[in-house]
Amino acid sequence: MSAPAQITFLTDYGLEHKFIGVCRGVMQRITPGVPILDITHLVPPGDVRHGAVVLAQSVPYLPTAVHLAVVDPGVGTSRKAVAVVAGENVFIGPDNGLLMWAADALGGPVAAYEIADPQIRLKPTSNTFHGRDLFAPAAAHVAGGRPPATLGDLVRLSDPLAEITADGATGEVLTVDRFGNIQTSLEVEKLQSSGIDGELEITVAGTTTRLPFVPTFGSVPAGTLLAHEDSAQLLSIAINLGDAATQLGLTPGTRFSLRRVAAS
Amino acid sequence: MSAPAQITFLTDYGLEHKFIGVCRGVMQRITPGVPILDITHLVPPGDVRHGAVVLAQSVPYLPTAVHLAVVDPGVGTSRKAVAVVAGENVFIGPDNGLLMWAADALGGPVAAYEIADPQIRLKPTSNTFHGRDLFAPAAAHVAGGRPPATLGDLVRLSDPLAEITADGATGEVLTVDRFGNIQTSLEVEKLQSSGIDGELEITVAGTTTRLPFVPTFGSVPAGTLLAHEDSAQLLSIAINLGDAATQLGLTPGTRFSLRRVAAS
Amino acid sequence: MSAPAQITFLTDYGLEHKFIGVCRGVMQRITPGVPILDITHLVPPGDVRHGAVVLAQSVPYLPTAVHLAVVDPGVGTSRKAVAVVAGENVFIGPDNGLLMWAADALGGPVAAYEIADPQIRLKPTSNTFHGRDLFAPAAAHVAGGRPPATLGDLVRLSDPLAEITADGATGEVLTVDRFGNIQTSLEVEKLQSSGIDGELEITVAGTTTRLPFVPTFGSVPAGTLLAHEDSAQLLSIAINLGDAATQLGLTPGTRFSLRRVAAS
Repeated sequence: MSAPAQITFLTDYGLEHKFIGVCRGVMQRITPGVPILDITHLVPPGDVRHGAVVLAQSVPYLPTAVHLAVVDPGVGTSRKAVAVVAGENVFIGPDNGLLMWAADALGGPVAAYEIADPQIRLKPTSNTFHGRDLFAPAAAHVAGGRPPATLGDLVRLSDPLAEITADGATGEVLTVDRFGNIQTSLEVEKLQSSGIDGELEITVAGTTTRLPFVPTFGSVPAGTLLAHEDSAQLLSIAINLGDAATQLGLTPGTRFSLRRVAAS
Repeated sequence: MSAPAQITFLTDYGLEHKFIGVCRGVMQRITPGVPILDITHLVPPGDVRHGAVVLAQSVPYLPTAVHLAVVDPGVGTSRKAVAVVAGENVFIGPDNGLLMWAADALGGPVAAYEIADPQIRLKPTSNTFHGRDLFAPAAAHVAGGRPPATLGDLVRLSDPLAEITADGATGEVLTVDRFGNIQTSLEVEKLQSSGIDGELEITVAGTTTRLPFVPTFGSVPAGTLLAHEDSAQLLSIAINLGDAATQLGLTPGTRFSLRRVAAS
Repeated sequence: MSAPAQITFLTDYGLEHKFIGVCRGVMQRITPGVPILDITHLVPPGDVRHGAVVLAQSVPYLPTAVHLAVVDPGVGTSRKAVAVVAGENVFIGPDNGLLMWAADALGGPVAAYEIADPQIRLKPTSNTFHGRDLFAPAAAHVAGGRPPATLGDLVRLSDPLAEITADGATGEVLTVDRFGNIQTSLEVEKLQSSGIDGELEITVAGTTTRLPFVPTFGSVPAGTLLAHEDSAQLLSIAINLGDAATQLGLTPGTRFSLRRVAAS
């Protein structure tokens, strides 16, 4: 494994306080001048699944790097801190499933190590701010050339619901952006090869709504519901110049079914 | 045109999701190590006019750069993607008026090119995330030394309302900041040379309010309305330690008239 | 004093507008390529005390740098602009108490200079945006090697309330994070050496609530109130997977008393 002197950084810390600045400082002190590319720090607090989705959809577009990711509602408990190697990339974060989909997106994990060397930690080490005291130092040391070290076990999140047959599909909402656009777990290519295309019906909690599968927002009039292929090749549901999530009452994790409207 | 290896970056993407991180990653992969200076990513969603004002008021203070700006409610429709050359600066973004005032602020556009070379785009190219798939790659290639290439046409936003005579002025709100301070379209130098100075009256939707034109917030007691010259040499309306926009009910685009209170 | 070519940056400007981007641009134009490490730009507007706490708790983890901090409700009045030297670090900002605790955290100020040389200012100089026109240029010039120059006087904020005796303690809320965790002014080491440990009672505005002093969030069931030592070695009050600030009605500056529950 050759060494990429670049760090990417994703957390649920928010931007209001010192958290992000302090972690950046810790890394700069250990490996001066290392570039740090922020993905986002506004993952909803404690939402490991959301963080895992954002990280997995981002890494294919990022440079080879040490990817530092901290969404860690179990901080201070027995969950392990890990370094996961995937090709020339290394993921640093809690062993709670946050890192696995991203490692899969870069070819799959080839080895995982617990971050256990006491030399890595800042002293004193807090019980609640492992981003500063453990994860950021580990990321900086690895970006500075230190090979990932002590092996540990990984847990794995369940995959999101995505069942597609010729009769219809069942999926769930992965993310909702600030515009109210809804990204689902369904891959467009699989939907289309099963004949789920054209005019669709989506059923959420017993309520069924029709919407067309079209190339882009502007394919329908303003205020109209639509389905389209988003930039991650996933089925996305939107309203042209409107807020689909609010109108349909969909939030991350909501399950729905989808079928093609039969020609009549 | 010599080549500035620096990118500035303005969007309405928000900071909650992967959007900004992914665009940064795309640029770093194409031109490794290129500095990226964020202006803001919190332009109100789809508000081209607001983005155009922020960009134009920022560029005089920025280094010579490739200025990447994406506020693009028409993404996926027929609007062009363009590179606009102004002196040694290049603007990259949608051809919807977002870039023109900024180009004017740097001496005016000298040439504009459509971004049409298929080698620029990421494959597959989404219909909805041109920031990642088209604009960011174009900015990175130009920052890396590639000359702006294929010519295209530009549209132009109408200029904001700003009519000043000896009898009074008519203007509109350009922006409101988080403190509730209101930036208007009226240039202070032109107001003063028309004798509009001292004690003023502003009329919004039939309601007239008096306020003094003073040097700074602290020139009046806390809670008092005032007009002053802001850092862009524009007339700004504020309340010392208060929120003028909420009190006056002013939002971007609101029109108002202004006149000097006659000495009695 | 040797020269650290690194700037850190903290303000209450928010991220919505051009403010941060423009300040970054001004610094890059004066000292091209200087690394700028953002601490936060979401200090509550005008809250000097909050900014002072965040800055002081951050700098021990930051690289040696020119620390530019602007929380300046008195902009345009007679308060001075200053450069405060502490070891190899230099703080740049308004002389309103914002910088002092941070200088203390780096060994204490050894000298303070008013930023008075007219060559430093951008022209024209606004009355309201000294971040851009005065502080950012000063920070960039110092980071670029210019020694802090003209001496001036410093004011000093009162220290936060923190009285600890064997009978109990009186403190105040320093900060509340986005999760609703409450950081107090009380140092855990001093509490414990006075025997204030184990099962505690906190009294706020006449209402007394019991809570255990435990190592971390996960030490108690979900929804349970707790006290713990935070990453700044201060007593922090939280609810495991909940929002303690909302439940207890605590905001920054709220005073409270604390005592140990006697064994019965």
